[in-house]
Amino acid sequence: MAVKIGLLGLGTVGTGTAQILLDPSGRNPLLKEITIDRVGVRSPDKPRLVQFPPEVITTDLEAIVTDQDIVIVVELLGGLEPARSLIVQAIAQGKHVVTANKAVIARYGDEIYEAANQAGVYVLLEAAVGGGIPIIKPLKQSLGANRITEIIGIINGTTNYILTEMTTAGADFDDVLADAQRLGYAEADPTADVDGLDAADKIAILASLGFGGRVHREDVYCEGIRQISAADIAYADKLGFVIKLLAIAKGSAGQESQTLQLRVHPTLVPKEHPLANINGVYNAILVQGDPLGQVMFYGPGAGAGPTASAVVSDVMNIVAILQSSGQAQNLDPLLSCVHQHSCQITPIEAVESRFYARFLCGDSPGVIGHLGTSFGNYQVSLESVVQIGFQEELAEIVVVTHHVREQNFRAALAEIRTLEAIKNIPSILRVL
Amino acid sequence: MAVKIGLLGLGTVGTGTAQILLDPSGRNPLLKEITIDRVGVRSPDKPRLVQFPPEVITTDLEAIVTDQDIVIVVELLGGLEPARSLIVQAIAQGKHVVTANKAVIARYGDEIYEAANQAGVYVLLEAAVGGGIPIIKPLKQSLGANRITEIIGIINGTTNYILTEMTTAGADFDDVLADAQRLGYAEADPTADVDGLDAADKIAILASLGFGGRVHREDVYCEGIRQISAADIAYADKLGFVIKLLAIAKGSAGQESQTLQLRVHPTLVPKEHPLANINGVYNAILVQGDPLGQVMFYGPGAGAGPTASAVVSDVMNIVAILQSSGQAQNLDPLLSCVHQHSCQITPIEAVESRFYARFLCGDSPGVIGHLGTSFGNYQVSLESVVQIGFQEELAEIVVVTHHVREQNFRAALAEIRTLEAIKNIPSILRVL
Repeated sequence: MAVKIGLLGLGTVGTGTAQILLDPSGRNPLLKEITIDRVGVRSPDKPRLVQFPPEVITTDLEAIVTDQDIVIVVELLGGLEPARSLIVQAIAQGKHVVTANKAVIARYGDEIYEAANQAGVYVLLEAAVGGGIPIIKPLKQSLGANRITEIIGIINGTTNYILTEMTTAGADFDDVLADAQRLGYAEADPTADVDGLDAADKIAILASLGFGGRVHREDVYCEGIRQISAADIAYADKLGFVIKLLAIAKGSAGQESQTLQLRVHPTLVPKEHPLANINGVYNAILVQGDPLGQVMFYGPGAGAGPTASAVVSDVMNIVAILQSSGQAQNLDPLLSCVHQHSCQITPIEAVESRFYARFLCGDSPGVIGHLGTSFGNYQVSLESVVQIGFQEELAEIVVVTHHVREQNFRAALAEIRTLEAIKNIPSILRVL
Repeated sequence: MAVKIGLLGLGTVGTGTAQILLDPSGRNPLLKEITIDRVGVRSPDKPRLVQFPPEVITTDLEAIVTDQDIVIVVELLGGLEPARSLIVQAIAQGKHVVTANKAVIARYGDEIYEAANQAGVYVLLEAAVGGGIPIIKPLKQSLGANRITEIIGIINGTTNYILTEMTTAGADFDDVLADAQRLGYAEADPTADVDGLDAADKIAILASLGFGGRVHREDVYCEGIRQISAADIAYADKLGFVIKLLAIAKGSAGQESQTLQLRVHPTLVPKEHPLANINGVYNAILVQGDPLGQVMFYGPGAGAGPTASAVVSDVMNIVAILQSSGQAQNLDPLLSCVHQHSCQITPIEAVESRFYARFLCGDSPGVIGHLGTSFGNYQVSLESVVQIGFQEELAEIVVVTHHVREQNFRAALAEIRTLEAIKNIPSILRVL
């Protein structure tokens, strides 16, 4: 007997999801056992790419999450409300939930998973991170034998598109953003993407799965890409790097007894690094573990088709479980989320990384010496110091450090700002 | 209560598997509920990296697969026999099986999965392809919403190491193979790797999962890398390609009503293609589907740690299912293998691809014209014809074709071999 699902939202991803489910031929045979029973929309009269009989369409979203016949609720509304409340209501009604909503899960995951575990239902979210790339299920089911040490991702397509365009065209941020908005790659309000908030939602989710603990969204340190200039991209290139917005979760010893770094920021990535070649709207997530080593998952990080592929795979997984175990007493411990502890987060001041900084200085002969002395005063050891050119009469000096504690680097910068020869520090970036 | 497993084989991967299971701290908590009850080895007195009490170790492998207490048999013997018989016996005893044995599954998958489905047990094989890279479960569970159109992989680490070394060092095959054997990257008898047989086993498995039908191992067209010369690698480089041993499964319309290309051969890969940058012993598998687009899975394709990570993930999956559904009546249809039909295979003569061919010719002025005419006689249209240099007094001409039917290309070559100016055709390769 077919499993009935209720679809909340018929936007881009909702339409893609419906298109797959309405045209199952040539796909996994399990799809033929799934029917879309109700579809909740805001504007029922809007022209759509998929057609449903009028009795299937409703504007009453609550009626869907409380419908007796519906077994799985697929939430594709986006945004915090009413998405969160509807998910919680669906769970309370004993329905399984599939969602692509990273914002809700990153903020209300604790509440949602506690409710789901109590109700004995699944809340699956493959589409929330990396679009069509399978990453959530592999983290849950395939990599758990490892002590995960690091997850590094390019997980926001808009910013990766902008940085790629800036790199290939030598253009500045504002111009490329305007182009991206015209082309539909960036939203009219690009804040969530360009300020790194979307990537922060996603790395909070990945970290929680990879490191097996609760992660608070507000603990993710976050810098966006607005301040990246064409000049920095050009200098990075000369030094052998490309600039990428990376989301990083880094631990030391696996799932227990450790603190976790959680950060999103533009980063100089060595050109030979696997993430350096991920361009355009593509995403990639690199997971490092012991004894696995490094694996990378690469693919389209957004778009109707890829995201719908992930949504439908979650629906299929639930249907497969229902078919095999019927009304089982317990949830599959690998597919459900049960976290006993909260991850301890390392404050950004205590994180060690390499830094790139660009200085504009009066061209006095001792300036590199002064820089070196100030960095040395705070145990910041330098990998390279290059006078890269002039801007009018100011010398432009680029410094790349070895791994240093952020606190020490900032203290050295504070001292450097007081030096008479230093006129400006237009950019400070981290280096992978 | 702990789930008892029996380990067949304590070689490299067996040892890696035992090391993970004996040291669960910092890994998924589920590992603490798995115990190694029996370990079957050939030489019990051999010194080992992991220690077991003497009553755990046995040379009687049959005693393990018939042991009442053992729930999951982990087969890490390799080779066809006794691995196949022991797997079949374990299934008959109602035990779930985890195996890394691509050779057995590629050849006896039908028999094994039929028996497993009848007995209601799982036979999982994540470690059989791509070492630590999650690819089997993603194909089964995450990509099934798509009509898969293509799977292309670099899935043999030894040949990828050899080709990478040949490319970076400009060295010839025999020298690099000898080095690889010294370093342990190639076996004393390298046949299975360098002749493409191992990759053929693996692509047969991937194709069967991706295209949802039975695949006969002997239907995989297979060419190895022995004939690749440093000269071809250098010419490919000039033309913008690297040479990789690719395993390709290519369909047209998803899981039903289509024929499938199945082939393993050295291939000129455009340098900007995602697979072009996969070097050394790393593996990568690219899956293309509708509406997904392209995703790629990258990581260590062999080695004790990565392969053990995959083996243990399969064991965990079975334990998780047992915990949640107890003695369920049915197998999970996404995790078990039920193929209703056999895939129809396109004979290699009917496959369309691009070709690269190198000719040694007497330097008569009309020779390029003669080549062009002969190719034209068989509808082989050319993308480029380059006289690349001289070998003694013979001109060396390299031709790259557009997509042509293999049959036509071969017919044109047969005619070209009769041309007086053509002295030799030292290499013929396919182009992606």
